[in-house]
Amino acid sequence: MKLYEQVAERLGEAISVGTLRAGDRLPSVRQLSASERVSVSTVLQAYVHLESLGFIETRPQSGHYVRRRQRPLPAEPQVSQPAASASPVSVSALVSRVYRAAGDPRVVPLGAAFPSPELLPARRLNRELALLAREAGEMAIEYDMPPGCLVTRQQVARRSLDWGCPLAPEDFVITCGASEAVHLSLSAVARPGDIVAIESPAYYGTLQVIESQGLRALEIPSHPRHGMELDALEAALTKRKVAAVLVVPSFSNPLGSCMPEENRQRLVRMLAGRGIPLIEDDIYGDLHFGPQRPRPAKAHDTEGLVLLCGSFSKTLAPGYRVGWVAPGRFREKVELLKFAQTVGMPTLPQLAIAAFLRSGGYDKHLRALRRQLASQVQRMVEAVGEHFPEGTCVTRPEGGSLVWVELPRKVDALVLHARALDAGISIAPGPIFSAQKRYGNFIRLSCGFPWSPRLEGALATLGSLARSLA
Amino acid sequence: MKLYEQVAERLGEAISVGTLRAGDRLPSVRQLSASERVSVSTVLQAYVHLESLGFIETRPQSGHYVRRRQRPLPAEPQVSQPAASASPVSVSALVSRVYRAAGDPRVVPLGAAFPSPELLPARRLNRELALLAREAGEMAIEYDMPPGCLVTRQQVARRSLDWGCPLAPEDFVITCGASEAVHLSLSAVARPGDIVAIESPAYYGTLQVIESQGLRALEIPSHPRHGMELDALEAALTKRKVAAVLVVPSFSNPLGSCMPEENRQRLVRMLAGRGIPLIEDDIYGDLHFGPQRPRPAKAHDTEGLVLLCGSFSKTLAPGYRVGWVAPGRFREKVELLKFAQTVGMPTLPQLAIAAFLRSGGYDKHLRALRRQLASQVQRMVEAVGEHFPEGTCVTRPEGGSLVWVELPRKVDALVLHARALDAGISIAPGPIFSAQKRYGNFIRLSCGFPWSPRLEGALATLGSLARSLA
Repeated sequence: MKLYEQVAERLGEAISVGTLRAGDRLPSVRQLSASERVSVSTVLQAYVHLESLGFIETRPQSGHYVRRRQRPLPAEPQVSQPAASASPVSVSALVSRVYRAAGDPRVVPLGAAFPSPELLPARRLNRELALLAREAGEMAIEYDMPPGCLVTRQQVARRSLDWGCPLAPEDFVITCGASEAVHLSLSAVARPGDIVAIESPAYYGTLQVIESQGLRALEIPSHPRHGMELDALEAALTKRKVAAVLVVPSFSNPLGSCMPEENRQRLVRMLAGRGIPLIEDDIYGDLHFGPQRPRPAKAHDTEGLVLLCGSFSKTLAPGYRVGWVAPGRFREKVELLKFAQTVGMPTLPQLAIAAFLRSGGYDKHLRALRRQLASQVQRMVEAVGEHFPEGTCVTRPEGGSLVWVELPRKVDALVLHARALDAGISIAPGPIFSAQKRYGNFIRLSCGFPWSPRLEGALATLGSLARSLA
Repeated sequence: MKLYEQVAERLGEAISVGTLRAGDRLPSVRQLSASERVSVSTVLQAYVHLESLGFIETRPQSGHYVRRRQRPLPAEPQVSQPAASASPVSVSALVSRVYRAAGDPRVVPLGAAFPSPELLPARRLNRELALLAREAGEMAIEYDMPPGCLVTRQQVARRSLDWGCPLAPEDFVITCGASEAVHLSLSAVARPGDIVAIESPAYYGTLQVIESQGLRALEIPSHPRHGMELDALEAALTKRKVAAVLVVPSFSNPLGSCMPEENRQRLVRMLAGRGIPLIEDDIYGDLHFGPQRPRPAKAHDTEGLVLLCGSFSKTLAPGYRVGWVAPGRFREKVELLKFAQTVGMPTLPQLAIAAFLRSGGYDKHLRALRRQLASQVQRMVEAVGEHFPEGTCVTRPEGGSLVWVELPRKVDALVLHARALDAGISIAPGPIFSAQKRYGNFIRLSCGFPWSPRLEGALATLGSLARSLA
């Protein structure tokens, strides 16, 4: 980074964390030159840069001010309208291209759904792990068979009280993140060729798992705020034999929708009456922006038909790969599948997570993380409004770290994805979120990283690319 | 353990490591009482205990001697003769019962195929991991996407030179042990309903994976020394459409057979000619008792049709779950499946294994481990000859840590398994190693633990249980 960019980055951060607010006057060029120990011309360059990004504005005779967003926030997208037929899935090749690009650290990471590592307690977790590695001895190198470490399951069970869905340690099987939890759950309840009902749009990883197991996806219309439309689901269930329903009721990926409590109850009852298993991916449940954590649908499960999946990948350490499933009556089946496919999980990361949770501070960490993500999502929505073409719609998620953007019809998200990548920006194009290859003019943007001039610049670039395609 | 058992255990260990050899005189009761600082009567009890186990013998007027085995070693089993039809697989429920029992630390562990943790460099590995956890910072908590850590793949590639099968870091995908490598490989090359040709008997974990993917198993006759019978395989391939062949050429589980080099070459050519993928599970390859490591069949692969699977679970740290697959032309597919099902592996265990390998000492460790396992296998074969009923046959593996025991026809291995468990001993009953539920009078015994009076006692108990069933 050039010197003036570094200065701009620091100022942008002060604006991002709220030290400087909309309408505030920035330090004078002379003041900043002195405090930053850079030349006046470097400060001027930094201010010009921030102004070009829309972060600040110059008022003649008066100085530089943090800019108020001029434009109203964009509208929200409508309820999705997928076709009412079940489709075999083949998104893998497309996903492959997308996620490969996202791995490059030089690329602005708007494509992948993980929180910035700087928001996670890396140091404390690694310290717990180092301590355990020194103390655990032979135990650390031995197989840990399913259902996984008891101390970890105890801590997850302890958390389940806070979810409003009290479960016991023996209800859980530890998995390689929520991804494997969903994979094993699907494998336990569905056979190749079976139909699985999912939200539309749906997380591409879930589509890939459905693809890899030879299942068919039935996309159900979904509301940007309330998630899967239950009337539509009910109608579909009367027409077709569905082996399982898979939902992300809390802050779904990519919609960010949150299913109301009464809908969760209705969903569980509807499926219980038909004996259909519900796979509930609760990976974003802890990331609510409002005061109350949404209760998992599993809380309404009286039949053992709900398989609740979660992980610490979005709140503590993706790279520790500690997830879980509470598979209800499918527990034995899930355990056997886990054993057959991977034998078990590494021991030490499980123990480190358990030690971290036992030692306290997780709730405090979560409060800070939620505040931060809420602010980042808000910034992203504003920036989309600022930079994207007229007619763009964007979701208003109340949790998680993703927004779903509907561009004018003419914009081809795959072309936009390719051009953005050329410009050093990764995004997730809409078609990977649908078995029917819908959402050709949608993109998903990640808000996992603290707002910065670099991000604002990326949004400006994306917006002008989108405009050129519209 | 009682005091006299502790004394017996220490003497047994001295015999086991060769400090005391067959025919050697043991210390006098008085000497041992002084050196062990226990009473004369405790020493006498220990000697009576060792004698009852057949470890030592008393010569009147002369003292106690390490006993020479009296009986000749049992014969080897014949080539297996499975039915020539493909079977759907359903071993999971049975396997579940077996592996649950094996997890109990009070049980003598003859049922599970892992080396005793005391034979593995737990302390050094954990130290590497602790150091890395302190140094790695945010990197340690971030997702590690397939194909997995480069430094780890570099070290595995470095090892592949020693296998006689040079591969590059980019040829490998890191997996959750060899189990997941095999699971992903099968998933990449076969669709539900497809037929997979396997050895007979075959590792029950592989049968479970075949079951979980809805594939059918075609068991091929296998020789106790040379593994899969290639004439039989060739005949089967002309009759049936086979989607893949899955073999463990080096020290298969449970047979311990090692496919001769010329057979490996013939196998690879036979399949290349038909365009059939070969999944090669090489997990025991490093555990050869002879001077030469067997070369993987992959060394003969010119078409990219061999998917080579391996791991460090049998040689370094099962609980770190670091395995790999070199999937040839199926690399992209395997990577996508890995991503879809688990996103990736935990970072730190991969890095710790790489650091251990880079720092040297793996070869020295392997030499000691091989010597130890060779001696343990030899002891086990002798003990089976000593204690088991007339007509028992046992394999003579030249690597690995398993023997396969054929009992007289009347002995029901499942009944023996249940009775042994009641007596605090876990074994693996034959029927879990066959999709056709064959091998009703076979058991697999693990030789992963240093020989000891406790083990000798367990073998004596097993032998008398088997006799009572014969």
